[in-house]
Amino acid sequence: MAELPRTVAIVGHGLIGGSIALALDALASPPMVITVDQDEDLGKTAGADLVVLAAPISENLRILSLIPGHLSAGTLITDTGSAKAGIVAAAAQLPPHVRFIGGHPMAGAAAAGRLAARPDLFAGRRWILTPDSQSRQADLAGLCALVEAIGAVPHVMDAAEHDRLIAFVSHLPQLTISALMHVAGEAAGESGLQLAGSGLHDSTRLAASPAPLWREIVGSNRTNIDAALDELIAALQRMRNDEGTDRLESIFTSAARWKERLG
Amino acid sequence: MAELPRTVAIVGHGLIGGSIALALDALASPPMVITVDQDEDLGKTAGADLVVLAAPISENLRILSLIPGHLSAGTLITDTGSAKAGIVAAAAQLPPHVRFIGGHPMAGAAAAGRLAARPDLFAGRRWILTPDSQSRQADLAGLCALVEAIGAVPHVMDAAEHDRLIAFVSHLPQLTISALMHVAGEAAGESGLQLAGSGLHDSTRLAASPAPLWREIVGSNRTNIDAALDELIAALQRMRNDEGTDRLESIFTSAARWKERLG
Repeated sequence: MAELPRTVAIVGHGLIGGSIALALDALASPPMVITVDQDEDLGKTAGADLVVLAAPISENLRILSLIPGHLSAGTLITDTGSAKAGIVAAAAQLPPHVRFIGGHPMAGAAAAGRLAARPDLFAGRRWILTPDSQSRQADLAGLCALVEAIGAVPHVMDAAEHDRLIAFVSHLPQLTISALMHVAGEAAGESGLQLAGSGLHDSTRLAASPAPLWREIVGSNRTNIDAALDELIAALQRMRNDEGTDRLESIFTSAARWKERLG
Repeated sequence: MAELPRTVAIVGHGLIGGSIALALDALASPPMVITVDQDEDLGKTAGADLVVLAAPISENLRILSLIPGHLSAGTLITDTGSAKAGIVAAAAQLPPHVRFIGGHPMAGAAAAGRLAARPDLFAGRRWILTPDSQSRQADLAGLCALVEAIGAVPHVMDAAEHDRLIAFVSHLPQLTISALMHVAGEAAGESGLQLAGSGLHDSTRLAASPAPLWREIVGSNRTNIDAALDELIAALQRMRNDEGTDRLESIFTSAARWKERLG
């Protein structure tokens, strides 16, 4: 098994960064954990074996461009953003001594922010890693070991394929539920919503998600999300014009089959 | 308070019809309950004070056209279908001695069918009643009393407005969730779905709904459902083309506000 890093710098300290810090502190032989929240403190990352960029996606990209001046040669950088192609491409443009492997822990909580952080946030959850052709096998093995140490299941995947899949299984559901809640609320109003059964209630938990966060996420994966929206719009149009056909029934049958596999 | 019917005939004996029968049987002074499942038995409805059509919508329409020959003058008919304008209009075409007031109990269960029936299915749930200009006040008062007796909350509403609202708060959510699960499953495949977090899982409970049932429901409220689908498609298209605008954010903000009111 690969050796764990002795010093980990975590940049950005919300739900994900805070939970990584707590999970590392709980290890039998915890690494030294340095948390960085301001540009002035980026110098603290010097000498770290691993830097984890755990700020919002646009912040991670900005910090990635600032950080090379602070790094020693032995430092690996990873991130935790939900879109990977952009930051992997940006990292490839940096000087050769900057080693970067993208990451995406598939974990979340109803509440965001540092106060919601917990050491078991990643227990049993997938943690996607997206090495590219420049990545070193030893770096990937080290990241896998770290991810496993804090209870997650590492899963290696191509960055572009990751972004395409996430558009369909994470970003599209969020946009769809928000659009549905918006349209139903505007059309039915407060009294009309009282006619809703448990179906609308159970389906729309995601509609409470914060708008600014999602504006940024959508911006980071725009092309894939637009393609996913196009597919959904086409399916809804097939349902709309199904008079005398079995298109509605075939979509329902397909949906029930996929739901059974999803659980 | 209006008098309860002494004899109730229930035509169709699935989840709703079965639960009405159980709820009536549990009353302190239960009416005589006659259950009818076959056309040959429609004669049993003769002399009933109330006939409840609790079969699927197209069956209710068919039975409504057969039943006048069997009825005595004192019989009121109601139904339990999730679309009201069609059956209210059909009832208005029947001979004047046929008295009809549409109904829609807002209750359901994960499982359909007679075996899932329970006497408390309607406890605390709304029961929409849609009288029209021909309806007698005494008939409406009697139905309200019956609905209250079995624990539901009667709510009088115009049939067309009911159908418009239900399209947005019940039918549209079902179609949207089935389309979403279909599109996500087809694009991501079984391995891709394993990247889904709890968001997709929690949002797609409705995707397990039976296709034939929904084909019929959609057929019964086609115009309103098409209008609702158009609104959703328009919202998704605004999200798709939001580059440099705040359209995505305004839909998210509206959705979060309506979700807070929905609960």
